[in-house]
Amino acid sequence: MKLKSDTKQFAVIGLGRFGSNMAMSLYKMGYDVLAIDKNMKKVQDFSNAFTHVVQADSTDENALRELGILNFDVVVVAIGEDIEANIMTTLQLKEIGVKYIVSMARSPLQIKVLEKIGADRVVAPERDMAQRVAYNLASTNVMDYIELSDEFSIAELVIPRAFINKTLVESNIRAKYNINVVAIKRGEHLIVSPLPSEVMHENDVVVVVGDNENINGLEKLK
Amino acid sequence: MKLKSDTKQFAVIGLGRFGSNMAMSLYKMGYDVLAIDKNMKKVQDFSNAFTHVVQADSTDENALRELGILNFDVVVVAIGEDIEANIMTTLQLKEIGVKYIVSMARSPLQIKVLEKIGADRVVAPERDMAQRVAYNLASTNVMDYIELSDEFSIAELVIPRAFINKTLVESNIRAKYNINVVAIKRGEHLIVSPLPSEVMHENDVVVVVGDNENINGLEKLK
Ligand SMILES: Nc1ncnc2c1ncn2[C@@H]1O[C@H](COP(=O)(O)OP(=O)(O)OP(=O)(O)O)[C@@H](O)[C@H]1O
Ligand SMILES: Nc1ncnc2c1ncn2[C@@H]1O[C@H](COP(=O)(O)OP(=O)(O)OP(=O)(O)O)[C@@H](O)[C@H]1O
Ligand SMILES: [Ca+2]
Ligand SMILES: [Ca+2]
Ligand SMILES: [Ca+2]
Ligand SMILES: [Ca+2]
Repeated sequence: MKLKSDTKQFAVIGLGRFGSNMAMSLYKMGYDVLAIDKNMKKVQDFSNAFTHVVQADSTDENALRELGILNFDVVVVAIGEDIEANIMTTLQLKEIGVKYIVSMARSPLQIKVLEKIGADRVVAPERDMAQRVAYNLASTNVMDYIELSDEFSIAELVIPRAFINKTLVESNIRAKYNINVVAIKRGEHLIVSPLPSEVMHENDVVVVVGDNENINGLEKLK
Repeated sequence: MKLKSDTKQFAVIGLGRFGSNMAMSLYKMGYDVLAIDKNMKKVQDFSNAFTHVVQADSTDENALRELGILNFDVVVVAIGEDIEANIMTTLQLKEIGVKYIVSMARSPLQIKVLEKIGADRVVAPERDMAQRVAYNLASTNVMDYIELSDEFSIAELVIPRAFINKTLVESNIRAKYNINVVAIKRGEHLIVSPLPSEVMHENDVVVVVGDNENINGLEKLK
């Protein structure tokens, strides 16, 4: 999905697994990406991968200023093992006045510290992905979801066998479960806002919005 | 979001950051979780955290069989640094006949190997989260999304200022952008399937389904 709306400038500090993938994704989406690492080997490895790749120690305020870090819309701090450097860098960026800082964390304590010193967004890759995958596995038919509130979600799920060859009306999905079908994915085709008369096929994936309990109820149908 | 539909049995092998968070999420959702680690210290640290926590080397087929690994619906292999143990374990589980295997990977090559030997799902936490966060940052107003196809997405976004105090009809969101508003999040309130006459307020977050380019167009409005 490309949602590029302007030419935002990104800087990524630390080219470990998270940082390099982040820089890569942003660069592939067409954004300008400045990548910073204090390790010259890393800088050389990625020298042609992003818009600019420079060697600098991000705990050094002057180095950050010389790179014009204030001109960037978003700065990502992705230093993993050296927790002190990660926190110090975040703090410097905040003091310099960077608009939006994303910091990577690896422990609950680190998350708290980073939030406290003003990181606008803290990402803990292993924890966050573990949660997503766990939710996802818990319910075999649910393929993806957005939690709208504690009660409501949008979920993408394989239709229960009971719905095959029925229309949306016949399935009672709205009347009985109070669930709205937002779209039907059928192989390569996508039917957005399907009519009540739409017939569901085997292997159809429906995107629904509704109460979690009702989505659960739907899931239990065989 | 709780989408628990039955009492599935999960086993998680390797209690590093990803594995332990995975076991924790599943256990908190009310599932039975068997956690396995070859390191006795890890087993002790988590001894009361999950349903069962046992010490075993998962590259040992007999050890896996003795734990009744075949009875589990999903087995998660979350061994990080020891790539060989990670791959060997996945291979053993496949040969034993485990129904659904999730394996953690850290490099593109490892992803390929794990897919080839039959892992049902391969998760690369740093890469996967980096992609999610990158998409998310690229478009400041988009807070979450589900990619429905190459062309269509569901996105949760802050309404453009131009929409404040307008009804959905007045905003022309459907007529001009061919975008459907699935829900409006207003503070603690959630309005599912809002009427065309619904007035949008400042700070409203709308959940929309539509073509990526049109969502982009919406994003560009100030
Ligand atoms: N003060 C610093 N300034 C700039 N870059 C730094 C600084 N400290 C560490 N880095 C860089 O951050 C990168 C990522 O940090 P680290 O070495 O902890 O790897 P990691 O995040 O554990 O990555 P991986 O997931 O690849 O193991 C490294 O390439 C390292 O050189
Ligand atoms: N053959 C094995 N059988 C069972 N557990 C194993 C095996 N090999 C490694 N483990 C366990 O897998 C866990 C996670 O692996 P690893 O030590 O590589 O940490 P990691 O995934 O890098 O975690 P972290 O993110 O915490 O650094 C460890 O607790 C380790 O003891
Ligand atoms: Ca490392
Ligand atoms: Ca699933
Ligand atoms: Ca480790
Ligand atoms: Ca965003």
